[in-house]
Amino acid sequence: MNATPSDPERPGRIMTREMHEQPDVLRRLLGTGAPRIQDVARRVADRAPRFVLLTARGTSDHAALYAKYLLEIRLGLPCGLASMSTTTAYGARPDLRDVLVITVSQSGGSPDLVASTKAAREAGAITLAVTNNPDSPLAAVSEHHIDIMAGPEKALPATKTYTASLLALYLFVEGLRGGDGAAAAVLPDHAAQVLARQDEVRTLAARYRFAGRMVITSRGYGYPTAKEAALKLMETSYIPALAYSGADLLHGPLAMVDNISPVIAVVTDGRGGDALQPVLDRLRGRGADLMVVGPEVQVTRASAGFVLPTAGVAEEVQPVLEILPLQLLAYEVTIARGQDPDAPRALAKVTETR
Amino acid sequence: MNATPSDPERPGRIMTREMHEQPDVLRRLLGTGAPRIQDVARRVADRAPRFVLLTARGTSDHAALYAKYLLEIRLGLPCGLASMSTTTAYGARPDLRDVLVITVSQSGGSPDLVASTKAAREAGAITLAVTNNPDSPLAAVSEHHIDIMAGPEKALPATKTYTASLLALYLFVEGLRGGDGAAAAVLPDHAAQVLARQDEVRTLAARYRFAGRMVITSRGYGYPTAKEAALKLMETSYIPALAYSGADLLHGPLAMVDNISPVIAVVTDGRGGDALQPVLDRLRGRGADLMVVGPEVQVTRASAGFVLPTAGVAEEVQPVLEILPLQLLAYEVTIARGQDPDAPRALAKVTETR
Repeated sequence: MNATPSDPERPGRIMTREMHEQPDVLRRLLGTGAPRIQDVARRVADRAPRFVLLTARGTSDHAALYAKYLLEIRLGLPCGLASMSTTTAYGARPDLRDVLVITVSQSGGSPDLVASTKAAREAGAITLAVTNNPDSPLAAVSEHHIDIMAGPEKALPATKTYTASLLALYLFVEGLRGGDGAAAAVLPDHAAQVLARQDEVRTLAARYRFAGRMVITSRGYGYPTAKEAALKLMETSYIPALAYSGADLLHGPLAMVDNISPVIAVVTDGRGGDALQPVLDRLRGRGADLMVVGPEVQVTRASAGFVLPTAGVAEEVQPVLEILPLQLLAYEVTIARGQDPDAPRALAKVTETR
Repeated sequence: MNATPSDPERPGRIMTREMHEQPDVLRRLLGTGAPRIQDVARRVADRAPRFVLLTARGTSDHAALYAKYLLEIRLGLPCGLASMSTTTAYGARPDLRDVLVITVSQSGGSPDLVASTKAAREAGAITLAVTNNPDSPLAAVSEHHIDIMAGPEKALPATKTYTASLLALYLFVEGLRGGDGAAAAVLPDHAAQVLARQDEVRTLAARYRFAGRMVITSRGYGYPTAKEAALKLMETSYIPALAYSGADLLHGPLAMVDNISPVIAVVTDGRGGDALQPVLDRLRGRGADLMVVGPEVQVTRASAGFVLPTAGVAEEVQPVLEILPLQLLAYEVTIARGQDPDAPRALAKVTETR
């Protein structure tokens, strides 16, 4: 690469700017956003939903998966991720009384999400759209709307809209259970500190410059992080990155892990990380090249890693921090491979699937 | 490879035998199995479940995903795939009244599945286990049980238990809606014809001998086939195979597809295949090496393919046939690479995740 950081044509400058906006985005959401989200949560709680269906695609699908863990663990509400084509391609019209349908979409513009949300509302569902655009068609067809307030996102790889969706969904679920979401207050400062360590990530990225494939694993709250990290790496660097829950990894894909398949483990500090422990031991036993994103004690036992600040950070909000070094990693690996993270081939920002 | 087909030490002979048992397994299930499944379906229908949660891992998880499409499309029942760790690692105890919890497990022996099913029953759920072992701990803790009657499965890559699970779940869902599942009657003969075309698959396998990665895509009923094919390829040949729904593929991973990343598309003849059409056009437009498993009209427009008998085969039962050439492909690619499909490194048949 001949470009310098100050070069206006520098590859990845849009993604860089948006990644580094994340502490401010989180602060804004905790400030002016939180009371509005509390208000939506109160109105939804009044309807006493008994089941939740989450609908999303791509990065937003990973935010939806995070919400699924929160809803099941913190609220005891049974949840499913919708298979959209059952509605849009097959015309299924399930009975959705007592069902809360949450649709997560950065743009709020994808026609299939608008169609499936409209159909859900007609089928009796309580509908909630979580978007970065309050004027979007999706917000218009939903009974309730949460604005993630991340500001325009220009880079093709979504970064700030992901962490903003996570935080908005966390505040919503806490609101549903009558909480105030105070555990999230520590996130903006910690996010700023993590993002300031880009040099550390650049060093880690060198390991993956010539990687032909990667495996990313986690369990519990960190599993959506593993899936989002894999998508980020694939859409920027084109390295095939396979994300598995630790338990699923032992059911087959482990055969693929050897000393030429690097593994990244997202170790949430808490019960998710504890449940991942046997998988980490097994990977170490196989001599896997293991990079850990998580608490210091886990990083020191791995081949390499990025220590996350987890002391005093509730397990359920750690995913907002976990993804940050992995966004930086996708960026740095892509730069190291001489590609432009801002302009992955073949991608459009609003994907018009029907 | 120096081994000959008659050699008792021939690599992959256990997997070969079990793949070719599938027509008989399907016949047995349609014969003596069907009335028992009808009976279970009637008893579950009497309880009038309003929501379904499916729990499984690995290959069984793909059978569960197929059931999700059936339940949503054919019955209009909202469905979710359970995130098991919310129960086993985090101790979540959701309110599961009116919820049918279906747990799919070949062995019926995985401790986490037994624990989560037990917890679901205590939380008020109607519980159903679908296993290949009526004497398993999972069958014991479930209120209802369906035996897939596939006979002992010895090869590490599951084949006959997958198609048997699909058919059992199809018969169960048809039973729930008061149908007789007559559309499945054509499957055993078609399955035998498909499996007899192993030479064709061997020729196709030569394309992938040196593939560094693969992308497998589908939409609708064929999507579980794509996921299962990817797992089969990974656990036997160790080729990283990434499965995406056609819609998700356009949201990021498409950047990874180029003329060195072969794509396999599973094109179900019906609405699922129709919904995949724009994705196929896009892939062709990018010059992707596209292999199609599906109806003849789609195969002739691709770089290569395997024509499935789809005339007179209802869309919702095609997945039972779709996976067969892909099982053969995983086998043949593995043999071509000089490995043994019967003994992938690192795998155990009953995976004791907790």
